[in-house]
Amino acid sequence: MGVAGLTFEDNINRKIEFVNRSLCEYFTKEENYQKKIYEAMEYSLFSGGKRVRPVLALAAAELFGQEESVMPFACALEMIHTYSLIHDDLPCMDNDELRRGRLTNHIVFGEAMAVLAGDALLTRAFEVVLKHSRLSPQQMIKGLAVLAEAAGTEGMIGGQVIDMECEGRAVGKDVLRAMHLHKTGALIIAAVRLGVIAGNGDSEDDWRLSAYARNLGLAFQIKDDILDVEGNTELLGKKTGMDEENRKTTFVSLYGLEQSKKMLEEYTQKAIEQIMFYGEKSEFLKEYAYFLLKRDN
Amino acid sequence: MGVAGLTFEDNINRKIEFVNRSLCEYFTKEENYQKKIYEAMEYSLFSGGKRVRPVLALAAAELFGQEESVMPFACALEMIHTYSLIHDDLPCMDNDELRRGRLTNHIVFGEAMAVLAGDALLTRAFEVVLKHSRLSPQQMIKGLAVLAEAAGTEGMIGGQVIDMECEGRAVGKDVLRAMHLHKTGALIIAAVRLGVIAGNGDSEDDWRLSAYARNLGLAFQIKDDILDVEGNTELLGKKTGMDEENRKTTFVSLYGLEQSKKMLEEYTQKAIEQIMFYGEKSEFLKEYAYFLLKRDN
Repeated sequence: MGVAGLTFEDNINRKIEFVNRSLCEYFTKEENYQKKIYEAMEYSLFSGGKRVRPVLALAAAELFGQEESVMPFACALEMIHTYSLIHDDLPCMDNDELRRGRLTNHIVFGEAMAVLAGDALLTRAFEVVLKHSRLSPQQMIKGLAVLAEAAGTEGMIGGQVIDMECEGRAVGKDVLRAMHLHKTGALIIAAVRLGVIAGNGDSEDDWRLSAYARNLGLAFQIKDDILDVEGNTELLGKKTGMDEENRKTTFVSLYGLEQSKKMLEEYTQKAIEQIMFYGEKSEFLKEYAYFLLKRDN
Repeated sequence: MGVAGLTFEDNINRKIEFVNRSLCEYFTKEENYQKKIYEAMEYSLFSGGKRVRPVLALAAAELFGQEESVMPFACALEMIHTYSLIHDDLPCMDNDELRRGRLTNHIVFGEAMAVLAGDALLTRAFEVVLKHSRLSPQQMIKGLAVLAEAAGTEGMIGGQVIDMECEGRAVGKDVLRAMHLHKTGALIIAAVRLGVIAGNGDSEDDWRLSAYARNLGLAFQIKDDILDVEGNTELLGKKTGMDEENRKTTFVSLYGLEQSKKMLEEYTQKAIEQIMFYGEKSEFLKEYAYFLLKRDN
């Protein structure tokens, strides 16, 4: 999987295709009494996600010449991300009917099946790693621990709980930051850490890449908040203005639009600084930070 | 943890206490923004469950003199079982308000928190094993694979989907059996298999114990169906007659009460036959099969 000479565009498209191909390969399904659950899982897993987390895992591993070996973990991250979206969209949570321009899982398959499809994708994430990873048992265990912690109550789920607890309350800057560092940040940080583990990087690498991802994760969320105000519904695949309608505290509501845009630039810049150490090899991670900054969906 | 000379009663109580103590030890919680989720998880995890799956894991490992080493997996099984009950009780699923004589999770904490508490317990199951297991990396990976598969679409979740798909339809004997082998059977089979892995048993051991658990799991479900007809609401901690009210196909509705009782005896006997091989050492597993047969809740 040489990447020399590829433009950024070609490289990212190649990575996304590689991820999609691997997801297809790992996502085995059965023709049995419970086949409906596979349809529901598949529907959301292959609905045109940006594959941010797997792409970051691949890019981090690539720093150590190890892109391919992180793939089962990369796909596991995408499955966990997808399950969290399915559960987030449920009527008792955000009650969303549209996601990426398509009907949400529970609208198509019903609430009960959507709950189970989410549960199943979370479970399948671990199954995929255990079945397909060719890393050493020690690396696998280290990676699984990173994955589980990032998905759990001190990671992504913790962020969702903070989000819920904040509903209808005045939220301070510290809480907003903590929420997003957990809700979006945890899996993004896990992605690059898994790349370091697959690449046998050391604790300095882990530190640098984690710092990159922490800043990137905040930038990512700020961009999301900006898009909800300034974005194009069609490009986004969902309604804009929802944060204001739901009276959600966002970076834009707390800092204003101009200041938020400045912060977006700053966090992106800070992310990039963390990986300068890797020189030319960090080119993709650098370009990717700008790519996420400029995205329109 | 010597067990020589203990009566069955003392032995099972000792095991359950050991499990509860370990669950407490592993169930760390934090005083932070998301502390509510820990309350919700704790509420259901410590609500007087029978601890069938962890007890079976301990008993299987004990055959090989390894009771203690399987404990993280034993507790993981209980966490997965508990999460499945929380999600099963949701309004969009079985819509139950009472479980083990207490209000169900979503009644106390709200639906959104109950969804997340279930998600969190499933995730925490893996975290607990990864953090606390002292088995070799190879054993851990083998065990985690068994755990994840048993919890997934070809295991417990698969059974829940079959159950849902059967609602309001005439269900045949084969489908009923397949549903329960997945829904209840998968985790019960995984419990003894994890005991074999912790005890470094061979494939013959795996085969024997799995056969024991498969029969025990069916007996367990038949007993459940009988209790729903003949049981005592107070002892059960939930309303009886629900299966008929919900027009669910059960062993009793398909085979009649008398035949179901005969099958309960037969499956229990068949379970016990599978472990005769272990002679005196299998005494607890044998007594436990009778204990489950005679239970009144």
